[in-house]
Amino acid sequence: MSIAEILPLEIIDKTVGQPVLVMLTSHREFSGTLVGYDDFVNVVLEEVVEYDHDQEIKRHAGKMLLSGNNIAMLVPGGKRVQ
Amino acid sequence: MSIAEILPLEIIDKTVGQPVLVMLTSHREFSGTLVGYDDFVNVVLEEVVEYDHDQEIKRHAGKMLLSGNNIAMLVPGGKRVQ
Amino acid sequence: MSIAEILPLEIIDKTVGQPVLVMLTSHREFSGTLVGYDDFVNVVLEEVVEYDHDQEIKRHAGKMLLSGNNIAMLVPGGKRVQ
Amino acid sequence: MSIAEILPLEIIDKTVGQPVLVMLTSHREFSGTLVGYDDFVNVVLEEVVEYDHDQEIKRHAGKMLLSGNNIAMLVPGGKRVQ
Amino acid sequence: MSIAEILPLEIIDKTVGQPVLVMLTSHREFSGTLVGYDDFVNVVLEEVVEYDHDQEIKRHAGKMLLSGNNIAMLVPGGKRVQ
Amino acid sequence: MSIAEILPLEIIDKTVGQPVLVMLTSHREFSGTLVGYDDFVNVVLEEVVEYDHDQEIKRHAGKMLLSGNNIAMLVPGGKRVQ
Amino acid sequence: MSIAEILPLEIIDKTVGQPVLVMLTSHREFSGTLVGYDDFVNVVLEEVVEYDHDQEIKRHAGKMLLSGNNIAMLVPGGKRVQ
Repeated sequence: MSIAEILPLEIIDKTVGQPVLVMLTSHREFSGTLVGYDDFVNVVLEEVVEYDHDQEIKRHAGKMLLSGNNIAMLVPGGKRVQ
Repeated sequence: MSIAEILPLEIIDKTVGQPVLVMLTSHREFSGTLVGYDDFVNVVLEEVVEYDHDQEIKRHAGKMLLSGNNIAMLVPGGKRVQ
Repeated sequence: MSIAEILPLEIIDKTVGQPVLVMLTSHREFSGTLVGYDDFVNVVLEEVVEYDHDQEIKRHAGKMLLSGNNIAMLVPGGKRVQ
Repeated sequence: MSIAEILPLEIIDKTVGQPVLVMLTSHREFSGTLVGYDDFVNVVLEEVVEYDHDQEIKRHAGKMLLSGNNIAMLVPGGKRVQ
Repeated sequence: MSIAEILPLEIIDKTVGQPVLVMLTSHREFSGTLVGYDDFVNVVLEEVVEYDHDQEIKRHAGKMLLSGNNIAMLVPGGKRVQ
Repeated sequence: MSIAEILPLEIIDKTVGQPVLVMLTSHREFSGTLVGYDDFVNVVLEEVVEYDHDQEIKRHAGKMLLSGNNIAMLVPGGKRVQ
Repeated sequence: MSIAEILPLEIIDKTVGQPVLVMLTSHREFSGTLVGYDDFVNVVLEEVVEYDHDQEIKRHAGKMLLSGNNIAMLVPGGKRVQ
């Protein structure tokens, strides 16, 4: 490969300690700080805001585990106002 | 990795004996005390309240096993009033 | 782990011969006596009542096999009136 | 385990040559005589009646193979009138 | 096992060269001549008629491969008029 | 097996360089020229027309990769006018 | 095989640094620059526009990871106006 390429797990690793947006396969979204992950792309977030169709529906004060099986998308930087 | 990271299974292990909220892939939620788990993230809860769209729909007095395959989210601390 | 923990399969094993409630991923529920299981959490029930949205829809006089792939929840003690 | 337990595959094996009711994950039901199975719980039925929401919708004169992946429930004894 | 049993793959093998009806997990049906299969129950049909809710919706003149992952039911003998 | 049988992957291999119709599990269809595949039945098409309920909805000028996990049906010869 | 064939992963590799369109199994689409991938077809995009039924619904300024499990289609060249 002639172009410097970024591995998917590398992106996750670099985001630890930073804001992240996670979308489940059901399109439900979670925005928070990424505090951990494993090789199955199970992730741990902190101070999470939960969104349904871009509407904030809930805040979770502590930690949250999201199962890798159900994660469709992960965006470093977190939820941004459109 | 320069930042202290928390492994997903570590979060579950630390929550044993404490309140937890589990959301299935169908978005049905279960809030109770975590009394056990295994490596497939099958979990055992106790004194569970079942929610559908944030409405309490049922109480389960004893233990409950939730299958890891269907768990989308796990929040230590349990269900909180918004 | 400092707290005595209950393994998920242990819960199932202890429930053999006792009433149990099983919910499938489709939310269809089955209440009966647990008479067997295997490591894939395939279970065998007896004298089963089938529920859809908490309404009794059918009774099955003999044994029933439920496939572990589709089991979302298992509650020792069976269906309880709310 | 102190209680005599029945293994799920044992139930299927004992039902060979007898009536059986099979429900798929889509809740579509098939009632017929079980004439074969394998370790993946793929089953072969004979003289099958197909039901949708408990309404008979079709009869299949010969043999039918149902894929284990999609089987949610299997009831020895077949479909019974409620 | 005291009763002569038919293995699921045996049924498929005996149907090669003969009419067959295949139903996908989505309930879409395909009726044609079975001309091949493999151990994953991927099948090859020929001269296929495609049905949706028992209505003929399309004819495919040549060969067709159906993926084993999505096959719920396979009936030797093909589609029969009710 | 007494009848000459065609292996599913053989069908795909023989179709390279020829028109093909691919239907996903969601019933979305793609018609184009098959230019590549692998053992997981991931396929590469070229000059693809995308159909939804038999209506042409889009044309893709170059190459397209379709993931084997989501492929339900593959028809050598491509989309034909009914 | 007598025809020069293109392997699916080869297509992805050649697209690194170029525009790409990715469609999830839910039909949600993402158009951006491909900056990385792995063997599970997890991909990393940059400067992504998100589409629902061909309507632009969101822009993501930085990087985005899309999970291979949920990818149905990948088109080098990205989203094109119809």
